[in-house]
Amino acid sequence: MAAVIEPLSRLINELSKLPGIGARSASRLAYYLLDQPEAEVRALAEAIWKARVGIHTCSICQGITDTDPCALCSDPQRDPTVICVVAEPRDVAAMERTREFHGRYHVLHGTISPGDHRGPDDIRLAELMARLGREPIREVIVATNPDLEGEATAMYISRLIKPAGILVTRIAHGVPVGSDLEYADEVTLGRAIAGRREM
Amino acid sequence: MAAVIEPLSRLINELSKLPGIGARSASRLAYYLLDQPEAEVRALAEAIWKARVGIHTCSICQGITDTDPCALCSDPQRDPTVICVVAEPRDVAAMERTREFHGRYHVLHGTISPGDHRGPDDIRLAELMARLGREPIREVIVATNPDLEGEATAMYISRLIKPAGILVTRIAHGVPVGSDLEYADEVTLGRAIAGRREM
Repeated sequence: MAAVIEPLSRLINELSKLPGIGARSASRLAYYLLDQPEAEVRALAEAIWKARVGIHTCSICQGITDTDPCALCSDPQRDPTVICVVAEPRDVAAMERTREFHGRYHVLHGTISPGDHRGPDDIRLAELMARLGREPIREVIVATNPDLEGEATAMYISRLIKPAGILVTRIAHGVPVGSDLEYADEVTLGRAIAGRREM
Repeated sequence: MAAVIEPLSRLINELSKLPGIGARSASRLAYYLLDQPEAEVRALAEAIWKARVGIHTCSICQGITDTDPCALCSDPQRDPTVICVVAEPRDVAAMERTREFHGRYHVLHGTISPGDHRGPDDIRLAELMARLGREPIREVIVATNPDLEGEATAMYISRLIKPAGILVTRIAHGVPVGSDLEYADEVTLGRAIAGRREM
């Protein structure tokens, strides 16, 4: 009975597939888009499509890029002897925002997670090992998340690389800057104490 | 210093223009899209663009449609003597979901709001008046929202139409079905008492 406007219901359906967007938000977004100038909507649709087809993984670091090698791997200013290993492409952006790291990256595209049947062969570890044989790497900083999978992955990488005589380090875990001791969970606080440094 | 992946930053920028999507959600959505199969991402981009260019307003009811007149206006089963006036295109879909209304619609595309400098000429009232002269309309149900602008608009329409001898009604306001009296605000509860009906 109700009139179905096919392009509208298709749009709502596509939007509701996105993470964090339920049926109600999808509907609200769809009606919003119908109300916007054509040029704005075209810019959004094109940005979505062009990002998907124009971005791929760097053949060296496996990070995402629209060139190959990526801008980071081909930057002669970056220290080629230190590699920061992260789980996901977005983690590179997070590290870069700190402006504290001047080496290169390696993106695993996942973590080892026996519970989810993801083993070492399911992440880009072979590519990391190949780099170690080819590049003048002194140190590998493992910057996976401080959760179960991240720690398991860090441990695995450490055992794999150390025999090659390369320094393997882990980013520090502790009380976040600007937060209150009172609100830190006990594991974080325990790590903060264990990782204390002389002032 | 940080590598800027132009198609990615453009996508994040476009997504963050959407209502309810902040910089963080936009970034999360962008990385999610990069990870999806090309066909899925193309379907989303196409759905956005096709909805925008394929949907326009119905020349009769001013509702949104991909045909003209819209499916509702051209449905001979719908009662042509009763018109339900709503503020926004999405309100038609909300009314249709009730399956309680079998007449036709008129979409104002806004409400009268002196505070926002929106007067009667800024909404599709002239189109409604033209229909009253042309169509066999007996009753106009005003279903604008029960807020300040919605009430002002309803009042304006009522004064405009009543002299033509057409019945003007307003949807009932009261305690929502399934909710608790305790949580109803006093205005709603007052309306519920004023609008009481014999059982």
